[in-house]
Amino acid sequence: MIKEKGILFVLSGPSGVGKGTVRKALFEKDTELKYSISMTTRAMREGEQEGIDYFYRSRDDFENMIQNNKLLEYAEYVGNYYGTPRDYVEETLESGKDVFLEIEVQGALQVKKNFPEGVFIFLFPPSLEELKNRIVSRGTETEELVKNRLLAAKEEIDMMDAYDYVVVNDKIDHAVEKVQSIVRSEHCKRERVAKQYKKVLEADLG
Amino acid sequence: MIKEKGILFVLSGPSGVGKGTVRKALFEKDTELKYSISMTTRAMREGEQEGIDYFYRSRDDFENMIQNNKLLEYAEYVGNYYGTPRDYVEETLESGKDVFLEIEVQGALQVKKNFPEGVFIFLFPPSLEELKNRIVSRGTETEELVKNRLLAAKEEIDMMDAYDYVVVNDKIDHAVEKVQSIVRSEHCKRERVAKQYKKVLEADLG
Repeated sequence: MIKEKGILFVLSGPSGVGKGTVRKALFEKDTELKYSISMTTRAMREGEQEGIDYFYRSRDDFENMIQNNKLLEYAEYVGNYYGTPRDYVEETLESGKDVFLEIEVQGALQVKKNFPEGVFIFLFPPSLEELKNRIVSRGTETEELVKNRLLAAKEEIDMMDAYDYVVVNDKIDHAVEKVQSIVRSEHCKRERVAKQYKKVLEADLG
Repeated sequence: MIKEKGILFVLSGPSGVGKGTVRKALFEKDTELKYSISMTTRAMREGEQEGIDYFYRSRDDFENMIQNNKLLEYAEYVGNYYGTPRDYVEETLESGKDVFLEIEVQGALQVKKNFPEGVFIFLFPPSLEELKNRIVSRGTETEELVKNRLLAAKEEIDMMDAYDYVVVNDKIDHAVEKVQSIVRSEHCKRERVAKQYKKVLEADLG
C-alpha cells in the first residue's frame, strides 16, 4: 500500500509578528496537523504530562542528544535546554502525519540545516506592506526616515532567503488561509506525488 | 510602486480527465483569474467577438506569428490553426492579473518550452488512485491485467515529469480546492515575493 509521508512545516518570523496567534488559529481549523512537541531539561510542572507538554530529559541526556545530532534545533534559555527531537518528528512523518513547528528565526535556520526537506514559511510583519505604500507616496516622509525603514526591511528580507514561502500577517484569517493553501499545495507537488507512484511502479514492473 | 506581476497557470492532463469541468468550476469561484484567449484562423461565427471568444487572424498572419515565436503553443485542427498568443499573455501578467490556460498535454509541453516560468498543473485521473487500491488487494486480478494497468500508469507518470503539481480529479470540488490552493501558495513563494521587495530596496538604497 502507498502511504504518503507527512511533511514538516516550519512557521517562523521576527519576534512579535504573531506566529503563535496564527498557529493557534490554524490548529483550530486543521485538526490533521500534528504540533511538534519540544524536549526540555526544565522540571515538569503541576498538570503537565510527558509527551504532551514536553518530553522531559536530564541535562546529561539532552547533551548526549546534542552530541548525537538527535535534535533538529535547540537553545538554552534561563539555564534550561529546549529543543526539537528529530526522532519524534521523523516517526510522526513516517506515520503519514504532517508536523507543524512554530519557532523563532534562529531555531528555524538550525532546522533548515538539519532537515532541509522541511517547508519553511516566513511570517512577515505587515509593515513592509505599509512600507510599499509609503514608498509610493514618497515625499511625505523625510529621506532619513525612509532610508532607515528600508534598511530594517533589508535585514528582514535577507532572513527570508532561507525560506520557501513568505506570508504577510496583515489579517490573521488571511495569513491562516495562506498557510493552509501552502500545506495543501505542497501535498500536490509533482516531486512528492510522482515519487510515490513511481515506487509502486518500480516494485511491480521490476 | 510595487506591482506584483501575475502568474501563468497551465492546467493540463490526459483527455477525458475533466480539465474543462474543473476549469469551469474554478472560474465560478475565482473571478480574479483571467482565462487565456486563443488565436485562430477559423472564421468568426455569429455572435462571437474579436478578443472575447478568439483573436481572429488570417492564415498568413498566423504563420508569421509562428515564425516570430509569438505563440506559446499552437496546433492545426481540421484545417485551421489555434494557438496561445504570447503578447496577450505577457500583457495580462504585466497588468498584475493571473492567466489561466486549460490545454491538452502536447500544448502544455509547448508552453513549458516557451514560457518555463509558468506553473504547470497536471490533472490526474482518479484511476491511479483506484490502481493503488487494486495493487493493495493483488490476487483478485490476473497478473497480466495488473501489469497492463501499471504500464498505462507509467506513461501518464512520465508525462507528469514536466509539471509542477499533480492534482487527482477524484471529486471536482476537491480538485478545484487544490488548484485554488496552488494559485494562492504560488503567490507566497519566497522567490517571487522577495524579488519584488528587493527591487524596491535596490532602487532606494542604491
